[in-house]
Amino acid sequence: MRAMPASVTLLGIDGLPEFAEGDDVGALLVQACAAQGTALTAGDVLVVTQKIVSKAEGRVVDLNTITPSALAVDFARRWDKDARAVEVVLSESVRVVRMENGIVITETRHGFVCANSGVDASNVGTGSVDFVVLLPEDSDASARRIRDRVRELVGIDVPVIVSDTFGRPWREGAGDVAIGVAGLEPLWDYRGKHDNDGRELHSTVIAVADELASAAELVTNKLTRVPAAIIRGYPYKPGESGIAPMIRERDKDLFR
Amino acid sequence: MRAMPASVTLLGIDGLPEFAEGDDVGALLVQACAAQGTALTAGDVLVVTQKIVSKAEGRVVDLNTITPSALAVDFARRWDKDARAVEVVLSESVRVVRMENGIVITETRHGFVCANSGVDASNVGTGSVDFVVLLPEDSDASARRIRDRVRELVGIDVPVIVSDTFGRPWREGAGDVAIGVAGLEPLWDYRGKHDNDGRELHSTVIAVADELASAAELVTNKLTRVPAAIIRGYPYKPGESGIAPMIRERDKDLFR
Repeated sequence: MRAMPASVTLLGIDGLPEFAEGDDVGALLVQACAAQGTALTAGDVLVVTQKIVSKAEGRVVDLNTITPSALAVDFARRWDKDARAVEVVLSESVRVVRMENGIVITETRHGFVCANSGVDASNVGTGSVDFVVLLPEDSDASARRIRDRVRELVGIDVPVIVSDTFGRPWREGAGDVAIGVAGLEPLWDYRGKHDNDGRELHSTVIAVADELASAAELVTNKLTRVPAAIIRGYPYKPGESGIAPMIRERDKDLFR
Repeated sequence: MRAMPASVTLLGIDGLPEFAEGDDVGALLVQACAAQGTALTAGDVLVVTQKIVSKAEGRVVDLNTITPSALAVDFARRWDKDARAVEVVLSESVRVVRMENGIVITETRHGFVCANSGVDASNVGTGSVDFVVLLPEDSDASARRIRDRVRELVGIDVPVIVSDTFGRPWREGAGDVAIGVAGLEPLWDYRGKHDNDGRELHSTVIAVADELASAAELVTNKLTRVPAAIIRGYPYKPGESGIAPMIRERDKDLFR
């Protein structure tokens, strides 16, 4: 039974530095939590936005080192884009799902279908517009490293979600989703349970990790440098599956 | 500037009855909030799941009154479905987006693209499996009615989101999204703002109403009758646009 929490609290983590390659994300988060009087405790979930994780892992590309392909040059010319950035997007993908109206939707190596392979040009933090940030190479491993470091430093096991902001079909506006998970089950499966009429709930699997990422976005912020959040009081289900169960198999998907 | 909240609290609303046609949702929510010691206060957002709203509005269909079309009969036979339920799904849609693998994705009159036109057979509450629940006729109007009733009863203006659980392409697991809004802007638009490198944020529009709905799902529950939540401390932007800005125009959508 999915336990009913009395209340869940979302706490933004403030006072973090601009991140650069080699930074110890876990240690910096632990320090920042303590400094603002919300030291991590058992039962917390830590949601860390992708940008700081990628920067700490050195996943930043200088566009001056990129030679765009003919496809990238053509697409960039037609849609007023930087051909070098388009090239990076294509090289970070395993498959192009849509490439029209100036929009590139790809499937990444991780299996995510998203705009621009998750490559982002905002908030790079280099003081230059010639850099872009890539997704972590292995976002589950990124989450595990932060979780392990936190456990090492404060002696408690806090599940970690690495989140990113994805758009979606049919609805305007993007929302945060999980791209890496360590220590909790990303899906909550109601199948086999029964409702109050005795009818079996056939198809209700809840994307808990995405809902936690979305909730965290309410207290993180793209402009004021609050790149992580604590979720306190949510009765998550521990697990070691990583993000994999959340990625729909290609042949079950009606929109690829 | 989107203000940075210190913390946001999610509170499930417990102790509500099984809803039936004619029930005063606003009044019952006000009473239940007070009874559990979390009376509504200024700044709160109320998230109400679709099922109780639809039931209170009498949007329940007895499948014994439905005569399925040949299309519904054929699809139901092939995929082991109830042809009468398939007929209701089709009649609640303005367009079928996909109808394969036993899955029906439609566009509803409201403009939502979702499975089964939002028609749901679980938790109908009639004690029979021969009933299904439809989406509210006008889910913005549903949200407005609850907001107006709360204002009438407790004298404060609390924005209301009516939420439903939708699946999505590419990712397993469903999540709650907004289907009706009253009193807050559903989208937060960062466009025109600048990041720390002075680069304009070109395309970051956040689906705040969906994130609030998702967050609320963490404290509501399909099995233990917690069909609504208070979100306390989120600095929403007041607005009267309803859900419309969140519905992508058909010719801008790459997946229809």
